[in-house]
Amino acid sequence: MTDYTPTKDDKFSFGLWTVGWQGVDVFGGAIRPPLDPVESVHRLAELGAAAVTFHDDDLVPDDATREATLERFTKALAETGMAVEMATTNLFSAPVFKDGGLTANDRTVRRYAIAKVLRNIDLAAELGAKTYVLWGGREGSESGGTKDVQAALARYKEGLDVLCGYVRDKGYDIRFALEPKPNEPRGDILLPTIGHALAFINELEEPDRVGLNPEIGHEEMAGLNFAQGISQALWHDKLFHIDLNGQHGPRFDQDLRFGAGNLRGAFWTVDAMLGAGSGKAYDGYVHFDYKPPRTEDIEGVWETARGCMRNYLILRDKVQAFRADPEVAEALEAARVGELATPTLGEGESLEDLRAEKFDPEALGERGLQFERLDQLAMEHLLGVR
Amino acid sequence: MTDYTPTKDDKFSFGLWTVGWQGVDVFGGAIRPPLDPVESVHRLAELGAAAVTFHDDDLVPDDATREATLERFTKALAETGMAVEMATTNLFSAPVFKDGGLTANDRTVRRYAIAKVLRNIDLAAELGAKTYVLWGGREGSESGGTKDVQAALARYKEGLDVLCGYVRDKGYDIRFALEPKPNEPRGDILLPTIGHALAFINELEEPDRVGLNPEIGHEEMAGLNFAQGISQALWHDKLFHIDLNGQHGPRFDQDLRFGAGNLRGAFWTVDAMLGAGSGKAYDGYVHFDYKPPRTEDIEGVWETARGCMRNYLILRDKVQAFRADPEVAEALEAARVGELATPTLGEGESLEDLRAEKFDPEALGERGLQFERLDQLAMEHLLGVR
Amino acid sequence: MTDYTPTKDDKFSFGLWTVGWQGVDVFGGAIRPPLDPVESVHRLAELGAAAVTFHDDDLVPDDATREATLERFTKALAETGMAVEMATTNLFSAPVFKDGGLTANDRTVRRYAIAKVLRNIDLAAELGAKTYVLWGGREGSESGGTKDVQAALARYKEGLDVLCGYVRDKGYDIRFALEPKPNEPRGDILLPTIGHALAFINELEEPDRVGLNPEIGHEEMAGLNFAQGISQALWHDKLFHIDLNGQHGPRFDQDLRFGAGNLRGAFWTVDAMLGAGSGKAYDGYVHFDYKPPRTEDIEGVWETARGCMRNYLILRDKVQAFRADPEVAEALEAARVGELATPTLGEGESLEDLRAEKFDPEALGERGLQFERLDQLAMEHLLGVR
Amino acid sequence: MTDYTPTKDDKFSFGLWTVGWQGVDVFGGAIRPPLDPVESVHRLAELGAAAVTFHDDDLVPDDATREATLERFTKALAETGMAVEMATTNLFSAPVFKDGGLTANDRTVRRYAIAKVLRNIDLAAELGAKTYVLWGGREGSESGGTKDVQAALARYKEGLDVLCGYVRDKGYDIRFALEPKPNEPRGDILLPTIGHALAFINELEEPDRVGLNPEIGHEEMAGLNFAQGISQALWHDKLFHIDLNGQHGPRFDQDLRFGAGNLRGAFWTVDAMLGAGSGKAYDGYVHFDYKPPRTEDIEGVWETARGCMRNYLILRDKVQAFRADPEVAEALEAARVGELATPTLGEGESLEDLRAEKFDPEALGERGLQFERLDQLAMEHLLGVR
Repeated sequence: MTDYTPTKDDKFSFGLWTVGWQGVDVFGGAIRPPLDPVESVHRLAELGAAAVTFHDDDLVPDDATREATLERFTKALAETGMAVEMATTNLFSAPVFKDGGLTANDRTVRRYAIAKVLRNIDLAAELGAKTYVLWGGREGSESGGTKDVQAALARYKEGLDVLCGYVRDKGYDIRFALEPKPNEPRGDILLPTIGHALAFINELEEPDRVGLNPEIGHEEMAGLNFAQGISQALWHDKLFHIDLNGQHGPRFDQDLRFGAGNLRGAFWTVDAMLGAGSGKAYDGYVHFDYKPPRTEDIEGVWETARGCMRNYLILRDKVQAFRADPEVAEALEAARVGELATPTLGEGESLEDLRAEKFDPEALGERGLQFERLDQLAMEHLLGVR
Repeated sequence: MTDYTPTKDDKFSFGLWTVGWQGVDVFGGAIRPPLDPVESVHRLAELGAAAVTFHDDDLVPDDATREATLERFTKALAETGMAVEMATTNLFSAPVFKDGGLTANDRTVRRYAIAKVLRNIDLAAELGAKTYVLWGGREGSESGGTKDVQAALARYKEGLDVLCGYVRDKGYDIRFALEPKPNEPRGDILLPTIGHALAFINELEEPDRVGLNPEIGHEEMAGLNFAQGISQALWHDKLFHIDLNGQHGPRFDQDLRFGAGNLRGAFWTVDAMLGAGSGKAYDGYVHFDYKPPRTEDIEGVWETARGCMRNYLILRDKVQAFRADPEVAEALEAARVGELATPTLGEGESLEDLRAEKFDPEALGERGLQFERLDQLAMEHLLGVR
Repeated sequence: MTDYTPTKDDKFSFGLWTVGWQGVDVFGGAIRPPLDPVESVHRLAELGAAAVTFHDDDLVPDDATREATLERFTKALAETGMAVEMATTNLFSAPVFKDGGLTANDRTVRRYAIAKVLRNIDLAAELGAKTYVLWGGREGSESGGTKDVQAALARYKEGLDVLCGYVRDKGYDIRFALEPKPNEPRGDILLPTIGHALAFINELEEPDRVGLNPEIGHEEMAGLNFAQGISQALWHDKLFHIDLNGQHGPRFDQDLRFGAGNLRGAFWTVDAMLGAGSGKAYDGYVHFDYKPPRTEDIEGVWETARGCMRNYLILRDKVQAFRADPEVAEALEAARVGELATPTLGEGESLEDLRAEKFDPEALGERGLQFERLDQLAMEHLLGVR
Repeated sequence: MTDYTPTKDDKFSFGLWTVGWQGVDVFGGAIRPPLDPVESVHRLAELGAAAVTFHDDDLVPDDATREATLERFTKALAETGMAVEMATTNLFSAPVFKDGGLTANDRTVRRYAIAKVLRNIDLAAELGAKTYVLWGGREGSESGGTKDVQAALARYKEGLDVLCGYVRDKGYDIRFALEPKPNEPRGDILLPTIGHALAFINELEEPDRVGLNPEIGHEEMAGLNFAQGISQALWHDKLFHIDLNGQHGPRFDQDLRFGAGNLRGAFWTVDAMLGAGSGKAYDGYVHFDYKPPRTEDIEGVWETARGCMRNYLILRDKVQAFRADPEVAEALEAARVGELATPTLGEGESLEDLRAEKFDPEALGERGLQFERLDQLAMEHLLGVR
């Protein structure tokens, strides 16, 4: 059997808040004690990860200990060779953000939110992060009249334009990545899917500085196909970062380890990340954003971190074998998958020429497409029986 | 009680395929006999509608009878003063389109699809339609490997660019409107939500010619908030057309009459169409795309058409009363809803100034937002108890 | 306008944990300070409620203060005339219950859970509660192999049998009510719907002592029709208690105030509670189990409590008007709704007789059922335009 | 690699309507020509199936050809050694059943439905079927007032009691199996889940004659865990038959081939069918109820039939390896999974004894349950990397 042990070349990355989740949910309190970020860096390095990511409040919740914490943290990074590849701001936990940050009705809250982001962008830049994520978990509402959506999008745009300008002025080598989510904790969240966020970016002053950080579970909560979603993001050149985890369709945000939940979806997700044969591929960090279940103690936490990376490596191996299999190549051809890359009109062909063509729709309709055979081949690669 | 009888000024419009649906579904055959489009025009006119819309195959399924049908149909339009405001192409019913039209793997199918659309655009222009809808119901797949999503989007773009060029060259006064849907009949459909379609439009050669035709049920099948979705479309100036109906969340496409399903959502949908107080409003036809249930005979069909319009008028009345209610105005102010229209930064304010401000997040977090009071006022307008 | 002010005769009841919810969720901490149960009793009494309900940990979280708390609490009940109509046990918040209580893999945890329930049953009896609810929020699993479902059901049955025996032996006038939920906080919860719980009860030693406490949101999270579900529970004589709130279909547990979410569903829920015209009706307390959103301060909390009761009274009024409307009576007859109460076979009719009958299925199939007309009448009662 | 070629000992069975589905859906017409049941018997036999199942209208849609069809059909069964193991009635396709069969408001329709079922039970008995399925696809409603649910359940019970009496009187060796479904084609279907149907059975005159035929997709459309559902059915001794297929959560009924959709769910489904280690197991036919996608011609149809069986054999192999793996045994013990089989109370132990025990909930809460390690082992068996 292949050894699926990760190395830094695999570019695996974990949020400090993932392994550090203490288990508080709506129905119960903390299960695990606080986890020291320094401990996380060391353990994740040992397991083969290459980087960590953080919210300001994960790493430096307290001004009194900020300097000391950063000193210990950067020492740990140096000792382990771990990078900080992404950072983000917590605009959702404190009561002040109960109606969101950048789109809160209360202007003073919005101002405080921007100040909080700016401060952590400075830290992100200092720690070398190249991606800055914005997850607007509380940007939304529970009821129709309480949020003016058009105004909220205008303020969201204002916020992003301000942040882009700041990064430009400072000369930071940082790009922003929006993380869509349809609901939870708010009843309905603004920019609920990959598509809505992509569309929004086009209205910004500096759209090139902003892309996406889609998360498997968030799209699957809306019943959407994640592989298809990130393929569209890649097509727009906007897959700046990614959050891998597991989910069982429309229900609460489960944040399972990668592979758990929709396993066939995970296979096609890795395939899409690798370019699905011949398309644009994702080349950033492979970031896990999940929550170790409350059933686990700290050893179980590290087991889930190990599982995320291991499952990715297993699936990557299988995807590559699938794409390299001659019988798959033949089945792809039989299913005319590659034919979709050929333009529909010939070079220089006029619409008059096209319309003059005689078609035989009945005969075309009788052609079997052999999609199921191809899918069964993929299934057998996934199951390891080829 | 107010009389909720529609007039042509209300700009209500119905697809010929809606009242004409015979009741065929996956589990059973036709319940009702075919409905003559001429009959539909007359009955809908009597009920107070202003316009009809059609797929090519609804109106002129057969070349042999095409001219005679069109003659009778235009006569009916003239007699009733009904308009044809929108048209669209059936690229989903015939076997030839089992893998879609504009994004079928089979290039010949794609070519045939474009020819079929072009032919019906000519008819749409001749009949005076200003909007041409594209619903890509079969553009998608059931399994990951059978559709190259990046290539499919490139072909989708090619198709739209061709169509835009055609309309430009012909000088037709027609705009295109994409209708997103997450799934059904395909397992996963390309451009699954309002957001994905908005994003896609930005990649086109002539994005100004293309907007959206969102449908309540389609967004709610993904658990998304329709009012929020069309508000984003309005913000992008892309709400070219609309499909009103009813749905009960993530399940099969129910296509209930407007008002049935998510009634609170219908109230906020009408509010969003009217601009939600102070935003951009929708000014096109109010189009119903639904299916009279199989339990109904033809009289029941007309009852549902009547119900769609009546429910819209009732809800419009209530929305206007809600927005005009002084107590609502006061509650909106208490909830700081209008404050979201004020830019977060002052005119000319620097980020240094902003960052120098002293914030008291604890005090800000303690402020109650009084959203529930506002929502209860809306509820009571909806229920007719204010 | 009718005055929708509740009185004790309306039998409205609230969980202490509802108005007392401090707003902790997976993504954020407490928004509101702890609420004294005595304060809740007084405020709810002023608003017109008749009773409160509690988990052991809501009322007496701490042994040290138990006696003093109970003294103050019973004094408040006496002063206000409020009843304690139901009680329940918190078997989900503390870390010890992370794998459930009655079905935890760990036998010692199960033993502790039973002891905890027994202790609170004594208190429930002392305070006069007639219903004891069991919501098994942590009884379930995130992954297939970790829970032996058949064994878990056997243990669940053992637990219920023990509790029934205890109540019998003590002579308490208490019935148990199971509260189903499909998921959250566990990935999949045992007895996920009304149906599963009803089926389970039939395996108990004393099934008559056990019924259901269904919650709107819990069934709607599975996309199920709540009115239909409680009608089945009534048919089985098992609707012992009820939890009213609001939800927007399959997503996280929103626990909105009653009326918010699926408003048409709320109308039919009240109709089903009243017997849907001619069936068995619910005659217990009208209990609200919801969470005032984090956007509200304590005044907003009371506003939501007021809204729950007010919305119930408004809907009850409308349901009664609907059922009393002569045009509705006529529409019900046209839709043959009452005909369903007539047995399909005649008295003493043999199957030979039935099979000898000549049927004309085509003619039967052509009959329109006029369901939409009836539903539109209901809609107009709901909207207050009749 | 193991050879996953089925034999009759595997007891695989297919509905004639599955491979025979012509592809008609709400949005399009037939893709494939009608398939002769005799052809299906021969091809399925060649592929390794052991049995077929049928609706009356699949096999003998027409009285004029009934005898000739049955002669050819029984000849094909004899030639191939194929059994007819189950039969069912089509009470949903014809217009007469637009409001259901056994619970139609129209009493004459109900009478006709019973007569139709009885006639086909005779044929089922003649052909040797031991299971008779009832899927009430049209038993339900789109709106609250149009169906009296309590009366409908009474009529459903009457219908089942009549059918049970008939089978008893005739001495047929046939058991009934109810097939639950939450919605589609009706808005909400009666007996929507495994649980609701199990509960209903307890109200019948002869409950022993009636069990369940649950379908993966139907439960997953409600977001329910199918393995957990059939485990509860086994616990009640009610898993009389089973329908395997594939689905992607709450959306339209996809009826994918087994394995497609929720693959991890399929693994645990097979595990549950085999008794999940130590519980009651399913010993009936392994029946596939799916629809070959419209993309397939007839060769693609046989490919999907082959895939269903092959995927089952692969998964059965993996489940058996998982349960036999010593490291899994150790992980099960660490997760205390087997401890759930031990009664919570000791033999003869009194509740006084239990309550006298000193518990240390904090220490119990600190114990890690190691569930993720166990689930990762299952994942690796599924992926074929152990």
